[in-house]
Amino acid sequence: MREVAIIGAGMTRFAKHVDRSMKDLAREAVEGALQASGVDKDALEAVAVGNAVAGLITGQECIRGQVVLRDMGIGGIPVINTENACASASTAFHLAWLYVASGMYDVVMALGMEKLFHEDKARSFAAIGSAIDVELMQQTLEQNAGAGQTRSLFMDLYAGFARDHMRKYGTTKEHFAGVAAKNHTNGSLNPHSQFQTPRTVEEVLASPLITEPLTRMMCSPIGDGAAAVILTSAAHAKRFTTKPVYVTASVLSSGKDHDAGEPGVTERTATKAYEVAGIGPADLHVAEVHDASAPAELMIYEELGLCKQGEGGRLIDEGVTALGGCIPVNPSGGLLAKGHPVGATGVAQIAEIFWQLRGEAGKRQVADAKVGLTENGGGMLRGDIATVAVHILTV
Amino acid sequence: MREVAIIGAGMTRFAKHVDRSMKDLAREAVEGALQASGVDKDALEAVAVGNAVAGLITGQECIRGQVVLRDMGIGGIPVINTENACASASTAFHLAWLYVASGMYDVVMALGMEKLFHEDKARSFAAIGSAIDVELMQQTLEQNAGAGQTRSLFMDLYAGFARDHMRKYGTTKEHFAGVAAKNHTNGSLNPHSQFQTPRTVEEVLASPLITEPLTRMMCSPIGDGAAAVILTSAAHAKRFTTKPVYVTASVLSSGKDHDAGEPGVTERTATKAYEVAGIGPADLHVAEVHDASAPAELMIYEELGLCKQGEGGRLIDEGVTALGGCIPVNPSGGLLAKGHPVGATGVAQIAEIFWQLRGEAGKRQVADAKVGLTENGGGMLRGDIATVAVHILTV
Repeated sequence: MREVAIIGAGMTRFAKHVDRSMKDLAREAVEGALQASGVDKDALEAVAVGNAVAGLITGQECIRGQVVLRDMGIGGIPVINTENACASASTAFHLAWLYVASGMYDVVMALGMEKLFHEDKARSFAAIGSAIDVELMQQTLEQNAGAGQTRSLFMDLYAGFARDHMRKYGTTKEHFAGVAAKNHTNGSLNPHSQFQTPRTVEEVLASPLITEPLTRMMCSPIGDGAAAVILTSAAHAKRFTTKPVYVTASVLSSGKDHDAGEPGVTERTATKAYEVAGIGPADLHVAEVHDASAPAELMIYEELGLCKQGEGGRLIDEGVTALGGCIPVNPSGGLLAKGHPVGATGVAQIAEIFWQLRGEAGKRQVADAKVGLTENGGGMLRGDIATVAVHILTV
Repeated sequence: MREVAIIGAGMTRFAKHVDRSMKDLAREAVEGALQASGVDKDALEAVAVGNAVAGLITGQECIRGQVVLRDMGIGGIPVINTENACASASTAFHLAWLYVASGMYDVVMALGMEKLFHEDKARSFAAIGSAIDVELMQQTLEQNAGAGQTRSLFMDLYAGFARDHMRKYGTTKEHFAGVAAKNHTNGSLNPHSQFQTPRTVEEVLASPLITEPLTRMMCSPIGDGAAAVILTSAAHAKRFTTKPVYVTASVLSSGKDHDAGEPGVTERTATKAYEVAGIGPADLHVAEVHDASAPAELMIYEELGLCKQGEGGRLIDEGVTALGGCIPVNPSGGLLAKGHPVGATGVAQIAEIFWQLRGEAGKRQVADAKVGLTENGGGMLRGDIATVAVHILTV
């Protein structure tokens, strides 16, 4: 298979774009990526589009990509619509990568987009809930009936994982607040970020309780947005840019039933990605990971091998994953602060690492970043996350 | 890219499976394909899943494939959920093919599945309607307000195309009835078919009018079902079977705005597929095409180059596309009789050609078929079909 390079990225600010349509958001991201890469829209040979819940929010199902692309004069080429819950966009990126890596097409776009905000909040929450096995959903609702108001099913699940981690490893609510404070502070340096106010551990702890131990600032917000990147073969990339970013590993997997001692899908997928790239976690300079909730990021440290099992809290105590630390995680602000328009997130993570590795990340730049990783998870099966994509990018 | 072979296929009967879940239907198709190919489920390295409207019918969005596969003990591998309206399953097949052709995986399954029937018919129709640009939908509803009861938006669109064809080329309502009578008669020979009663032109014309000139038997029905096939490299195929069926072309494209004289997406996609396979329409022995309505099949004859523009009716008059004719089309019964559970159709077409080329098609067998084609269209943009997949299979 051919080596693949990313040559341009574009994205909207993530936000509650109350007055903007998905077509409008996608257009901004696509035009940004085309302009940044110097590729004319007529040169695109295929597009892979990630979106999770447009059908349930806007009523447009089935041909979400074609409808949005036609609006900007892009058509007549393969359009793959893919959906993998919160990992929809990185699945789209994986398929765009596959088209180029296989040799089938030379210039392919990956687009992630989501219009998640709806004036009826219950509709947004219901849409997110469709990323869980409907049987599991029912069970979780029953278990959590006494644990406070059920604002979001996913946050209830994350809260359960967080309490387990606290019991087993002595992790504290302050550790989770530390993750959120770091990411909100990073987000304040990122013009694409939904929240741009630096936060302290105290502020995070003082924000309204969602489900013990999660406060509101430890949960990713509802928002809208789009992100796009242009891929080509490493050989073709030199025609467009002197600074291509190479896709060294693109690994997608899904969850399965497993014993408590066995690795879950995140660890398995990361291990495979390191193997494909021929590196280990100690070789990473920067990472964007799926902090849909603050405890999730801390557990992902362990699953990615940034520390041993149970030591996630220590990385926060020591500032290892803060900007300026050994391995900054979520310099963009992550899902907690940059925002999490579900089907856009995966490509936005790729875009952030692309900019970091090219030294174009402005005030949030990680110095001398040459190797970056993205980890994007989505959905929930009984006993495991439904899908995880891990990408390793290098210059 | 590597040559890819299909080594096994399975499918449910297409029908209104009122008491069966999508999990249950998918299980029958998957187990059938695994058994037919001699592949153990643990040997699957990836699965591409096509489904169009489960979110709107069953409430399960985002991770439709994972939820269904976990139920039968398949997990821990990449699962691609893809959606391309009525061409969802052939898009899944295309992606499964891409995984194998690229060299990334050796044993991959393509699964198409749909639970379209709902006791509230309006919900099924609304789900199908989501395959049209919502703006176009509004416009069509307004135009057809006086043309009889609007039972299905798509049938209104097809009726418009049919009336144009009649005006331009002298095609008659009897021609369309001839397509439907042929396919219903073929369906009576197929145990997987939703309708298994042979029909005459007179019976088709006498069935209730939907929208002039379409009668009910000229329209594909609402139904449920699933189909699966197993793909591997041509080199690996010999380990499993002495009768592999090779994928000679796998071409996906999408519609675009174009002038009246320019070829539409179906013709463009077929032309590309012939080019990739190094054959022409005269080399085909059998085809399964997207007869969502009877006039559609007749127009597809022209777009595939089986005859010249405007001559589709002649092929029906002369029995060219009937079983026993020069190029039998839809020996399975097609969408009209075999049925059209939207997100299952594309893989079911592939399964039919697979069986035809292996000489395993029972009473509907096309003698000495060595080269077959599938054409699967989906969704509607303003001015063109949203997506088309054409596959050419050979032995």
